[in-house]
Formats: sequence, structure tokens, C-alpha cells
Amino acid sequence: MTSTATTLKGQPLDRPTLDAMLRRRLFFTPAFEIYGGVAGLFDYGPPGCALQANIIDLWRKHFILEEDMLEIDCTVLTPHEVLKTSGHVDKFADWMCKDPKNGDILRADHFVEDVLEARLKGDKEARGQKVEEEDDPTKKKKRKQKTVAVKLDDAVVQEYEEVLAKIDNYNGEELGELIKKYDLRNPATGVQPSPPVSFNLMFQTKIGPSSNLPGYLRPETAQGQFLNFAKLLDFNMQQMPFASASIGRSYRNEISPRAGLLRVREFLMAEIEHFVDPEGGKKHSRFVEVEDLELTLLDRDTQLSGKTTVRKMPVGEAVRNKVIDNETLGYFIARIHLFLQKIGVDMSKVRFRQHMQNEMAHYAADCWDAELLTSSGWIECVGCADRSAYDLSVHAKKTGAPLLVRERLDEPRVIEEWQVEVDKKKFGPFFKKDGKTVEAALLATTQEQREKLSKQLTDNGELELEVAGVADGKVKVSKDLVQVEFRKRIENTREYTPNVIEPSFGIGRILYSLIEHCYWNRATDGGDEARGVLSFPPTIAPTKVLIVPLSANAQFKPFIKKISQKLRKIGISARVDDSSATIGKRYSRNDELGTPLGITIDFQTVKDSTITLRDRDSTKQVRADEDTIVSAIQSLVDGSKEWKDVEAELPAFEGQEVEVAVR
Amino acid sequence: MTSTATTLKGQPLDRPTLDAMLRRRLFFTPAFEIYGGVAGLFDYGPPGCALQANIIDLWRKHFILEEDMLEIDCTVLTPHEVLKTSGHVDKFADWMCKDPKNGDILRADHFVEDVLEARLKGDKEARGQKVEEEDDPTKKKKRKQKTVAVKLDDAVVQEYEEVLAKIDNYNGEELGELIKKYDLRNPATGVQPSPPVSFNLMFQTKIGPSSNLPGYLRPETAQGQFLNFAKLLDFNMQQMPFASASIGRSYRNEISPRAGLLRVREFLMAEIEHFVDPEGGKKHSRFVEVEDLELTLLDRDTQLSGKTTVRKMPVGEAVRNKVIDNETLGYFIARIHLFLQKIGVDMSKVRFRQHMQNEMAHYAADCWDAELLTSSGWIECVGCADRSAYDLSVHAKKTGAPLLVRERLDEPRVIEEWQVEVDKKKFGPFFKKDGKTVEAALLATTQEQREKLSKQLTDNGELELEVAGVADGKVKVSKDLVQVEFRKRIENTREYTPNVIEPSFGIGRILYSLIEHCYWNRATDGGDEARGVLSFPPTIAPTKVLIVPLSANAQFKPFIKKISQKLRKIGISARVDDSSATIGKRYSRNDELGTPLGITIDFQTVKDSTITLRDRDSTKQVRADEDTIVSAIQSLVDGSKEWKDVEAELPAFEGQEVEVAVR
Repeated sequence: MTSTATTLKGQPLDRPTLDAMLRRRLFFTPAFEIYGGVAGLFDYGPPGCALQANIIDLWRKHFILEEDMLEIDCTVLTPHEVLKTSGHVDKFADWMCKDPKNGDILRADHFVEDVLEARLKGDKEARGQKVEEEDDPTKKKKRKQKTVAVKLDDAVVQEYEEVLAKIDNYNGEELGELIKKYDLRNPATGVQPSPPVSFNLMFQTKIGPSSNLPGYLRPETAQGQFLNFAKLLDFNMQQMPFASASIGRSYRNEISPRAGLLRVREFLMAEIEHFVDPEGGKKHSRFVEVEDLELTLLDRDTQLSGKTTVRKMPVGEAVRNKVIDNETLGYFIARIHLFLQKIGVDMSKVRFRQHMQNEMAHYAADCWDAELLTSSGWIECVGCADRSAYDLSVHAKKTGAPLLVRERLDEPRVIEEWQVEVDKKKFGPFFKKDGKTVEAALLATTQEQREKLSKQLTDNGELELEVAGVADGKVKVSKDLVQVEFRKRIENTREYTPNVIEPSFGIGRILYSLIEHCYWNRATDGGDEARGVLSFPPTIAPTKVLIVPLSANAQFKPFIKKISQKLRKIGISARVDDSSATIGKRYSRNDELGTPLGITIDFQTVKDSTITLRDRDSTKQVRADEDTIVSAIQSLVDGSKEWKDVEAELPAFEGQEVEVAVR
Repeated sequence: MTSTATTLKGQPLDRPTLDAMLRRRLFFTPAFEIYGGVAGLFDYGPPGCALQANIIDLWRKHFILEEDMLEIDCTVLTPHEVLKTSGHVDKFADWMCKDPKNGDILRADHFVEDVLEARLKGDKEARGQKVEEEDDPTKKKKRKQKTVAVKLDDAVVQEYEEVLAKIDNYNGEELGELIKKYDLRNPATGVQPSPPVSFNLMFQTKIGPSSNLPGYLRPETAQGQFLNFAKLLDFNMQQMPFASASIGRSYRNEISPRAGLLRVREFLMAEIEHFVDPEGGKKHSRFVEVEDLELTLLDRDTQLSGKTTVRKMPVGEAVRNKVIDNETLGYFIARIHLFLQKIGVDMSKVRFRQHMQNEMAHYAADCWDAELLTSSGWIECVGCADRSAYDLSVHAKKTGAPLLVRERLDEPRVIEEWQVEVDKKKFGPFFKKDGKTVEAALLATTQEQREKLSKQLTDNGELELEVAGVADGKVKVSKDLVQVEFRKRIENTREYTPNVIEPSFGIGRILYSLIEHCYWNRATDGGDEARGVLSFPPTIAPTKVLIVPLSANAQFKPFIKKISQKLRKIGISARVDDSSATIGKRYSRNDELGTPLGITIDFQTVKDSTITLRDRDSTKQVRADEDTIVSAIQSLVDGSKEWKDVEAELPAFEGQEVEVAVR
């Protein structure tokens, strides 16, 4: 494993060169830049916007259409109460501290991590050990600090390393203690920051003119899907299992957004909530279709042993061996793998990492992240969690809405149990204002308690029950007011709260990682090192075809128009470049934009109506009549053919002006 | 003109029946309903979501692809300074008052309008005149108030009517005066509300952890496009004219959202900013393609005369006669017309209404709204404004960014003008701290002033200038410090700030109006009145094909699977309904969902692999082998054929079980 990121062709990936290219080609750009910009906010320019739309389009086909998922589109504005119930108001927070001298705001865990890492690096330098200049890309985070060569005691080194190993586990108080204990100082000012305070990551606002309805911008699209569960189940004609899906923006007021698309404050998510019966092992009817697919897994046990060695394993085996908790979770992990492959991600730079127990929400049964290797290390791009019945349960409890499935049983179930029955006519008048409380306490008793209460009634003619808040906390109920008996009951329906398997995609992170995975430069061809190429698959490429007239000669114009119209008619996006730059320069520009195909219109076109078609990756060309070329383009874009098929079918072209161009 | 809205077939449109159907089929639903809901926030269920996606897809093809527009995707979060500059912080507000008794918050103009209208209605009743129960759908607003039959003086009636005619023109103070003068009281409490205060309609939040960067949720997508102008011009290789486009959510914290999708707080917009040279009459190269298209226009002059009579006129004529200000504006109005037609809007319920002078922003040159007639009256669904150079100018002025076009002139321009030149070496030392101010004042002089100043220098050896804030406001500058001369200057480039033509689409309003326009019921067929149908064109319909097996018989399953896969492969969304309901019930359900085509799989399918295809609108059926039917479906969905073509080509089918179904 090298310590530097690589391009698609295995070249060292030079991040500043790539960044400059993405900026020059307007893939994305800092938002409000002419006003100085706002950290964590980015606009997508035309190629980034088209790339995003194509990823979403493929996502919709791969997931929603393929499995008849119910797509819904919910509001971003969310009232306080909903996110209070879901736990976000209380728990969706990071710890932050403030530098009292310059007002710097620091994310506490990052701060501790950065300072300790810098000290360890300084120690290595002082010991004369080799210090890697590039961060290890297998590490998850990358922030630089200046190091000072100071040797540490061996025991201190070990202590720091232990702290760093469990940095994600400290709460605010503990982080504050670490800052004091190790006298951690902000390098910018040389002073210790203030003790960490909790900072909720949701953007807050007020809904309506009266200002009394606080709300937030949603931090995930999931809640809207849960709240609509009963309606969706109805729409699905009560059939289980089923999935809903949403594509939309979510918001997190990050304390320290990174430069670039990897940690931003406004981002596009695509989330699926697959609702499944918790009984019967969470089987999936289409699991058989994917069970042989080999996944790259980094499971919990391996991580616990301090290693990052991945295991390759068919998903069927992983589920059988309980590496992955259940079939439905395994099915979606496999589908995520196939999706990433389809959009052109380099699968040698993908791993599925299982969450550690303390990393998951307490209610989660299992959770795996699809991580993509980039120049910033392994980046979590897709999460796939089993959220159990948590969300539906808390919303149902809070609102009283029946967020559950009622299933008719094939055979009625006979249930024998201790049942409590109060005599309503006498009970109320007897207990007066305490009637409801006492009745609720009776009904809340367990089977074991009831057996005892029944015995009391038989033996003493009355039962004694603890009821908080009534009289002295003990209440006696005589047998003419209540019966407790062991009886049969027949159930024709079964009620249950579904469990939720949630594949959740961060589209911006996927998009950025994909760009790195598709990036290379023509140096390997013996070409110019600066000539970057983005080898997006045709389905995903922002523009599919570049149309290049040899020159501004008016004779070419009708051909440009005709071919443009033909492509537009079959829904293939093309752009004309009739600028005065050389053909080579024009193709080079479009290599950077990731345009997979190019058409040249030259003097031969005027003579015999043939045109040439160029493949971006090989720079090879073929020549044929317009209709043949258009049909080849269509096959390449819809994925039914590859370039080698086209090359085999159509005559190659190596015209002089093009020679000049591709060198 | 009738006073009630009608369905596609001219039947009276019963709004409650339609609403119940839309709710039952989950087109949209109040957001957070299990928490009691939040006014003005709606979620789209699966059919609404698919309808929205199809409208957007067609919009993208019709506008962006067709004209090579540069689509960009900007953030919703916007810092204060940007919207301060654009004018939204100061002016994007409505007037609201509060009822001191019950705390009701009222939008002041609506309140005045409602109370006065109720009094006029009461007067009519008292005079024994007929009062229309239904609001006139040609009116724009619809809010009900209880009326009391009280006769008014004739003069008072006239006064009220005059106030109502110019209700949009009053400011807060004036609305407050009307409330006092006419003693307008909130019917809910019988008390006068407080004087109107300005309420800004933007949702406010804070960006970043330090809470010192106030921001808003954008009220329109336009500003992001303006801020990126220089980058987009670069991306377009400096070529003008060009257009950018954005599809995304915007937010307005409405004081009183309406029930339904017509006035909501979070909504999807699609906006185009077409940048054009203000010189040369704003011509458009493709205007010739649309000039014969006949538009339905309600121009400013007609409205000034108090009428709503529309004029039908080819757009070419409208531009020639200056009814529409310029070609580019006319071109986009025509393109909007074609778009609405393409998605299935009833064009007899569309008009383009010109804004009154006082209705437009002060900088706008001209503005037309596409209004669609619905059961709530005429609804503004698309705006098409000439925003002049306003936005680019204010942002450029505030930030210093060059939001302009530099164009190389074919022939250099010789300019003769009065020029001011200061002797920098002497000027600064002489005026000391006032140097820059005095210099700026000199450079800010007009040509006429300079001519006079030049004469003063010649005559007196010095000039006298008013400079606020320096000495006593008058400054003398001698001729050794400054020269003012009439000189020649040669310009090789021309700089200008482009004007902006902005077509702006409210997707939710279009979607809702379209639903009303496509809605009818089978009553006209002699069928059941309750059987609603949504006759969406196939391109727009949420689902294209319903697959219906005759029964749950296992023999049908492989056929269902095969046909589903075939349709999925060619990207046509289909749904299977294998529920136990009768075929008639299942088709009826899908009429309500607007599914244009249905496939039945029956015992004959098992014998000879033929299937039937049903047309939603006529309920006619044809029968053929699977591939023939799939190819017919493809032609119907891509619009290359209509049902009558398919009916002419394939044998009709009138099997018994289907007879039962379509009755």
C-alpha cells in the first residue's frame, strides 16, 4: 500500500493540479465567492450539475425503478417537535471549544487529535525517524499542523496513541479533561481553548409570522419518510415489505467544514427506507440474485484487533456467517456495490466498513459504510444501517399515530393469558378522580403480577396495588370491581412495527470521489503531463458528445445543425465547439470535461457526408456516414456497446488534422 | 364566461371530490400531519413526486437541452449581505397586523380586502340582489368571510369599490389608515387589528458555529446565477448571448399560506436567466421559429381600462406593435406557451397577463405572467420579466467584481471627450488627507461640467469645485495640479453589463393547475360520476403502464415478470396490480392515478402469449403479441404515435372479462 493517492492509471494523484482543473472547468465553485465565500457552501457549475443529475438518474433507475420503491418528496423545513422526538435536538451535536484570545472556534475532537498527532510527529522527528510527508490515505482524516521536533517519554507516546485510538469515544467533559491534562494549545495563539460545549448541528429558523414555531432544516431525509409510513403502506395496498425513497437536500451546520465537497453544510442525499417484518430473520426475496457477489469487507472484529485488513467474501457467505447481520442488509450492501460499479467508481478503492458498537446509534442492529479511497483518505460515501423499529416507535408513541402493520393471520392464534377486566359501572364512581389512574395501573401489570393479583382476589377478596400519586401510593381493589382470570383469546390479526433498513447516499461525496477515481493524465501515453482526462462512463458523463468543425468555414454549419438535432432528438446531450482553437486544444478541453465522444466535421464531410467519431480514452477514431455514427453513439451511451465493438465494426480514421490533434 | 371551474370535459369541477381523490391517491399530503401539520408545507407522495420529476425532465429538455443553457445548482443558504444588496432584506416583505385580543396574525391587504368584500356582499343581500355563491374564477383571490345583510350608502359602495380596485398599491401606513377610517374589525373577535408592520418573508438562520453570520433561505434561485455570471461567461468562452438555468427549492415565509399547493412556504422553482446585450433591440436569433405562434394576451392598457378581455395575437405581431417589449422577451413567452402545451395544460385556460407599471420592480422593463385558470381563479404560474441590468449592476457595485462583458470591437471606436488629468506628484502633497476626495470629485464630473471647468482654468488659472466634506465645501484647484482638455481616445473593446430576461416557473403551481386541467369524470360516458380520471399525456403521467393479471393464478406470474422486465429495460415505468380487486376496480384506481395504458394478462396469454393494451381515455383495447404491444407502448410514451394510430394498426379486443371491467 503506497501512502499517496493514485489516478485511474496508477499515476501519483496531484491534488492541486486536479483542483485547478475542476475549478477551470467549473465543476464546482465556492458559493458567493465574489462576496468572499462562505465555508462549506459550494455551487455546481454546468459539468458538475450534469454529472450530479446523471448520477441521480442512474440511482433512480438502479434502486427506485428496479424495485418499485415509493419515491416521495418531503419538505426540508421541519418543526422542532419532530426532531425532538427523533432525538436530533438532543443528540445531533458536536463538541466545540473557543480560543479565548482570537475567538477561533474549534471542533474539540479534531483539535485534540491534531495537537496530539503533531506532538507524535515532532517526537518522531526528534528521534530521527522517517516522517511520512503525505498522510496515510488509509486514515480517515487529514488536517495539517506544523510540527516541532520535541522528543517525548516513551510512556507519553503510548498514552497519546491510546487516546488517538479511541478519539471518537470521548464526550465533551472528557475532551475538556484531555485538553487540561496534556495542556493542549491552539497553535495559532499558544493558548488553551475553553472547555468544550455541545453545538447542535442543525440550522434553526422560525416558521410563520408569529415566530413561535421553531423549526430546523432537516439533517436527513429519513424523518419525512417515517412520518408518512401509514399513508405509504396504504398506497402499497398494505403489502409488506416495501421501501420508500427520497432524493433531496439536507443540512448540517458543520463547525469546521473542509475545503472541497467532502464536508459541506448543504448537500444532496438519496435515502431509502426499506420496511421489513422483524420476525423471520429479515429475509429478502431477491437475495439469491446477489449472493455470489464478492464484497470487500472490513468487519468489526478486524478493527477491534487494530487492523485495517479487508476480507473479500461473497455476500451470501457473509450473511451465513453472521458477518453481516441479515439478508436484507446484505442485499442492499450488494446493491450499493453494484451501483458504485455502474457509475464508474474504481472498485479497487472501495471497502465496506462495519461500524463499531460504540459508533452506532444505540438502537441500530448493524451498520456498514461504503468507503471510497481518495486523496483525503477513506471517505464514508454511503451508509447502510439497520435502524430497527426505533424511529417508527418513537413517533408513534409521541403522536399516537398507528405506525404499524396489521396483518391478517392465515390461522387465528389462540392466546392463553391472564386478563384484567374492571367493572366500569362501579369502578369509576368508586375511585372518582383516581379512576383512570388506577385502571391504567391495573392494565399495565405483567402476566406474573396478574397471577399474584388473581390469587389475592381469591384469597382475600381484594387485591393491593402500588399506584403512584394515588392516596399513599397503595390502593386496594375489591373483587366486585375487578376480575383477574386466566383466559383464552383468539387473535385473527397480528400487529407489528416494521424494522427499517436504510441505505443512505451522500451524493456530493460520491461525485467528488468518482471524479478522483476517473481522473488521469496523458503522461502515460507519452503525451503532455498537464493534459488531464476524466474517464467517466458514457452514462454518467456530463456531456456525451463534442461536435467539432475543422474550422469556422460556413460550409460546415448545416452539418453541425443536422447532427446536433439528431442527437437531441434521441436525448443525447452534445455541445458544439466552433471556437478558433486547434482541434487538439478543443479535444483537450473536453477530455477535462470528461466528454467520452467527439465528432469531427471536415472537408470530406462536405464531399461525402461522412463524419469521424473519436473515443476519449484511446483517442482512436472511426469514420462513417452520419446515421451509422449516430447509431454507434446511441449504443455507446446506453451501454449496449463498448468502444472496442465500434472500433471492430467501423473503419478506422487517421486523417492528418486529427493526427495533429491527438498528439 | 361561467362562474364555476370546469373539468377537461367541461363538467362542473367539484373541488372537494377532486381534493379527496388526490389525497386518497397520495399525490400530495400535508407535511407532518401526524404532528398536526404545519401550514404551507406539503409532501409529495409517489404519484405527485413522479409527476413533478416528469415535468422537470421535460422542462430540462424543452429549455436547457434545446438551447444549450448552462445549468447550475446553487446553495439555498445565502448570507445576509447578498440579499441586502439584491434588495430582498429591505423590500421582500408583506404588511401584517395582529389581533390584540386573540393574537391572530393577518396579512393586512388581504384583511382589508376581505372585510370590504364581505360588506359589499352584505349590501347586495340587503338590496335583494343576487349574490354569486361561487367566487368568480376570473378573480385572483379566494377567501371566504361570513356576510351580514346590511345596506350601505351608494357613495360608500363606490368608495369601497375604488379601494378594492387598487388594493395592491397601498403601503402599510395607508392600509392602517383604511382600517381605522372604515373601522375594519377581525370577524373572529370583533376588534380592530393593530397597525400594519412590515414582515420580511425570508426564513432567517445563522451559518457557522460562531452565530455571527446571519443568512437566509433563498427566496428565488436567481441570485446564485447572477453571482456566478463571470464564471459562466468564461465557461461559455465569452460568447453572448447565453442563458443559465437552475432548478431548485426556494422559500417564502408566507403570512397566510393557502390550503393546497398554490401558496406554500417551500417550493420548487425552475428559473432561466438569459443574458443579452442591451444594445440592438434585444433581438433573438430563433425568434423567426416562433413568430407565427398565436398567444392569448391580457395587456396593460386593457387592464387599465378595467377590463379582462384577452387578445389573441401572433407573437411576431405583438413584438412589432410593441405590445411585448422586445424579441427576446417575446421568444421566451412563446417558448413558455409551447412548454405548457407540451405538458398537457388546457390552453383555453391560459393567458399571458402583462404587469402594471406599479406592479413591477422599478428596474424592470416589461413583465408578463403566464396565468392558468383553476378553481381558485387565475393563478400566476410562470413569470417572464426583463430585469434589465439591475442585479448584475448592484452586485458588481457592491463587490467590485467585473460582472460585465468585454467585447472586441470590429472597428476601433474613436471617442472625443473632455478628460480630467491630475498631476499625481503635486496633487497629493498639496491636498494632503483630502487628496483622494478632491480627485474623486473631479473624476465624477459630467462632460458639461468639465467644459466649464476647462474654461475656468483657461480664464482664471484655477477652477472651483464643490466637494462635500472638504474645507467649507468649496475647493480651488490651480492649473499646475490639473488639466481638463478635449481629447481623442481610441477604444478597441466595448464593455457592457448585460440585461437579463428571466422566465421563472413555479413548478408546484403548474403541477396543481395541470391536475385540474387534466381532471374529469366518467359521468359523460354514462359511467359512474364518482369515477375520476386524470388524462395526463403519457410523457408526463406518473406511471405509464399498469399490468393487470386477470387473477392471482400462478400461471400468469412468468408473463408479469417478463413484461415488467421488458418495459423497465426501455425505461418505461410500470406497476403491477395483482390485488384481488376486480379488473374494473383496478383500472378505476389507475384512472385516478392518471396511468395512460393498461395491460391485461389472461388465460389467452397463457395459450398464445398475446396481451391486451387498454387506453385510459377511451377505455378501448387492442390485442397483440408481447413485442408488438411493447413497441406500441414505446411509441405512445415517446409521443411518436397517438392512441388512434395504435387502434388503427392492431386488432381491437372486447373480451368478456374486460367488458365487465370498463363499464
